[in-house]
Amino acid sequence: MNLLIVGTVAYDSVKTPFGARERILGGSAAYCATSASYFTDAGILAVVGEDFEEADRRLLEERGVDLAGLTTLPGQKCFHWKGEYGFDLNEARTLRTDLNVLTAFDPVVPDAWREVPYVFLANMDPKAQAKVLDQVEAPRLVAADTMNYWIENAREDLQALLPRIDILVINEAESRQLSGEANLLKAARKILTWGPRSLIVKRGEYGVLAVSAEALFAAPGYPLENVFDPTGAGDSFAGGFMGRLASNGTADADAIRQAIILGSVMASFNVEDFSMTRLAALSWPEIAERYQAFRRLTRFEDL
Amino acid sequence: MNLLIVGTVAYDSVKTPFGARERILGGSAAYCATSASYFTDAGILAVVGEDFEEADRRLLEERGVDLAGLTTLPGQKCFHWKGEYGFDLNEARTLRTDLNVLTAFDPVVPDAWREVPYVFLANMDPKAQAKVLDQVEAPRLVAADTMNYWIENAREDLQALLPRIDILVINEAESRQLSGEANLLKAARKILTWGPRSLIVKRGEYGVLAVSAEALFAAPGYPLENVFDPTGAGDSFAGGFMGRLASNGTADADAIRQAIILGSVMASFNVEDFSMTRLAALSWPEIAERYQAFRRLTRFEDL
Repeated sequence: MNLLIVGTVAYDSVKTPFGARERILGGSAAYCATSASYFTDAGILAVVGEDFEEADRRLLEERGVDLAGLTTLPGQKCFHWKGEYGFDLNEARTLRTDLNVLTAFDPVVPDAWREVPYVFLANMDPKAQAKVLDQVEAPRLVAADTMNYWIENAREDLQALLPRIDILVINEAESRQLSGEANLLKAARKILTWGPRSLIVKRGEYGVLAVSAEALFAAPGYPLENVFDPTGAGDSFAGGFMGRLASNGTADADAIRQAIILGSVMASFNVEDFSMTRLAALSWPEIAERYQAFRRLTRFEDL
Repeated sequence: MNLLIVGTVAYDSVKTPFGARERILGGSAAYCATSASYFTDAGILAVVGEDFEEADRRLLEERGVDLAGLTTLPGQKCFHWKGEYGFDLNEARTLRTDLNVLTAFDPVVPDAWREVPYVFLANMDPKAQAKVLDQVEAPRLVAADTMNYWIENAREDLQALLPRIDILVINEAESRQLSGEANLLKAARKILTWGPRSLIVKRGEYGVLAVSAEALFAAPGYPLENVFDPTGAGDSFAGGFMGRLASNGTADADAIRQAIILGSVMASFNVEDFSMTRLAALSWPEIAERYQAFRRLTRFEDL
């Protein structure tokens, strides 16, 4: 197992202007691992309830995702999120959150995974993220996500986590909130002084801005005529990104750029249908073709 | 004279979180021509009042801008815009608009300019834009800007203009408003059926998306730590873009991509200071260096 992904495996009830679905497979770790599975051996560290369906377990297994870290809590139910999107698909409105199993989540890394080289800590309590790192031995590369809730309510824990990670993957508003800087570049540079060597700022349909001490890299979002459901776009991005780095074995500036584009490719597929419908059914030629489309989309000649 | 720019030469009173200035040189044609002046011979077709200052005329002349089309209306005052920006520099709040000379603006193209090959119609009444085109003979390439006001209040005139232009340069919200499509790509493709062969969608700090029948091109905004005043960014973009095309003589897909980057370069300089302070004082090596920075910002290797 090459990439440990800790996060949620959940059920989502989602409404967009293009349709609605009840209790479809979702969750940060499920999206991230499905996406990463095209690049590397990924494993999920998460909890589900007794209502987790066999078909959903099979979907992940068929993608080759290692579920040794997926624990079923007896007598409990899966985390459930209900939300909707308007025509501005950049923003979800949360209608309901049933934490269920999440209230009891205490991540225990399986013994066989303790030497895993790549780790992605999806958005969760930074104390739990730190606890995962306490249980792995000298991983080669660690990336983490977070959200406004933890920035507001667990800032000290989050601040303590930052020196322990290599890459922080958050969105624009979170970058500003975490740093207290309105200017995104100033925000990024301030966050870098707190530990991570790269900050990857997710900008929804506008793509990604990556900031490190050495360089800036900007990737646009892939323009799509049909965006069905943006749920899981950020986690699909993270999965493609980390999956590629884990399979590559290097994380120099060029490798990070390629991984960002592959992450963007995976996110662009993910939003084309609900749940993992599109993301779990891709072929490598499709992925490579969209990577080439990104090259055509962004290339320009020297003067 | 290679590039005719019709628009406004105005005074702006601007407040941003970083300072405030009263009655500084502004206006779409002034920004656009100053920007274009680094690439080609540009001329301004506009009206000013008797309060137009000699120093401002000199600034434009020193950039080599042809002012044969700049008419002073006796007894009148320059167009004056007063506005402010919050920390979200993407959106201006208009505090006051004194149309002054603009109410009487009836564009008359100087005889010497009737065979001008390149034309930029800055945002104004589409009837006036059409009137300029009536007075030029078979220009090689025409681009136009517009805004929400004309989309709402002069839709028929605007619609009649579209088949007469090659490139429409508008922002995201205007693209959606004009087309009635929420999805930007659908919006663009619909607008293209109405005449222009390219649509250039300005997305503020997120850059530009260019859509034509053949291809898509996405360019990010240049990440800056210090944005002082975004006024004129769109017109500086248009100036660099049209100036480069006019100097190049071709407008194939590759030339358009380079011109978009050069437009973005000029816009990025423009926002680094108030009015034309930075934009009028550039050197070619600075421009070329930032073009290279755009290459470094966006490049990634093939898989």
